[in-house]
Amino acid sequence: MPKVTIAQNILAANDTIAGEIQQLLAARGIRTINVMSSPGAGKTTLLERTIEQLRGQLDIGVIEGDIETSADAERIEAAGAETVQINTRGACHLEAHMIRAALEEIDLTHISLLVIENIGNLVCPSAWNLGEDMRVVVVSTTEGDDKPAKYPQMFAASQVMIVNKLDLLPYVDYNVEKVKRQALAINPHLRIFEVSCRTGTGLDTWCEWLMRYVHSIPG
Amino acid sequence: MPKVTIAQNILAANDTIAGEIQQLLAARGIRTINVMSSPGAGKTTLLERTIEQLRGQLDIGVIEGDIETSADAERIEAAGAETVQINTRGACHLEAHMIRAALEEIDLTHISLLVIENIGNLVCPSAWNLGEDMRVVVVSTTEGDDKPAKYPQMFAASQVMIVNKLDLLPYVDYNVEKVKRQALAINPHLRIFEVSCRTGTGLDTWCEWLMRYVHSIPG
Repeated sequence: MPKVTIAQNILAANDTIAGEIQQLLAARGIRTINVMSSPGAGKTTLLERTIEQLRGQLDIGVIEGDIETSADAERIEAAGAETVQINTRGACHLEAHMIRAALEEIDLTHISLLVIENIGNLVCPSAWNLGEDMRVVVVSTTEGDDKPAKYPQMFAASQVMIVNKLDLLPYVDYNVEKVKRQALAINPHLRIFEVSCRTGTGLDTWCEWLMRYVHSIPG
Repeated sequence: MPKVTIAQNILAANDTIAGEIQQLLAARGIRTINVMSSPGAGKTTLLERTIEQLRGQLDIGVIEGDIETSADAERIEAAGAETVQINTRGACHLEAHMIRAALEEIDLTHISLLVIENIGNLVCPSAWNLGEDMRVVVVSTTEGDDKPAKYPQMFAASQVMIVNKLDLLPYVDYNVEKVKRQALAINPHLRIFEVSCRTGTGLDTWCEWLMRYVHSIPG
């Protein structure tokens, strides 16, 4: 069949601001993770469960990115984390200057982990550095098991992949091993967790690892 | 909670090309639809089932947008439609100049319906006119029932919403009526279909409507 290829560079002009954010947060001993996924893969529910499970053990602050609405931020705040809402009003990803503005609204003195929940989008957010230490991509068993191959930049740019909605595996055509193979072919260093935020499967392993990650911070 | 709002205009600089495409296709009596959704909502499977069901009744051509891979185009071609693959190499949406290039590779003489399958992305594609007559947004019951409220531009810019994966309703927390209410509040003229591409539920109604839509073309 005929193919038409269009080359396009997505240039990250915000790297300078991202570098300043990273320095600011590192100086305060705060680890920062940038959580990305398709719409509806379960980022917010994963954060709710993580915050609930680590309550009393880890002080978590959250920056919630959404195009419109503050429904997710309200859920996160109800789960017990200090939360700042960013509404991008149409923009499909967060940028470093938005994070810099949000940081002025959050009390950093008690926080050891800052979580940035990006816009639901498996494409654009991967190109924008927000000053994070780690990128987490969430996929779910209902999205089809071809996502790493179809959206490789997201998986190349992440350090962790979380496969969510394990509870729905009996009802969908989804091969977890195939997804892991695809993702590891793109990024052999990817750390993979398999969870169900609905039943709780796998959340202990994820939360324990996250605790160790946060406390391994140097200085 | 504190809120930070960032205004950003997404300007559709490609409207002139889109207008030319629309004229070209209208002059040939071809109706064109632009199908959009989150990654994994089921666009490709919906097209496969639609092509199979309308074989012999409607000649369909397909332009398949993907960042990488031609897996979807191969599926569509196997289903029996003439197919052109566009690989955007990182770009998160199709633009009119890509469609113009793809049209040079497709034989338009036998086609009465041209389907453009956009990149899996519920944000950016809504801002780019491709010369289509109608926009179709596909949502699925596994994505959470807050998508119209969270991604309103997509629903405001579409004429049809298809709710897919009805077969998974017993296993997820998803209120179809809530989604329909949200979507209609944004866009009261939205035509809504409910289907399961896995079991076939609702596909007859959708295909019959699509046939009528294509044949109602004036001139």
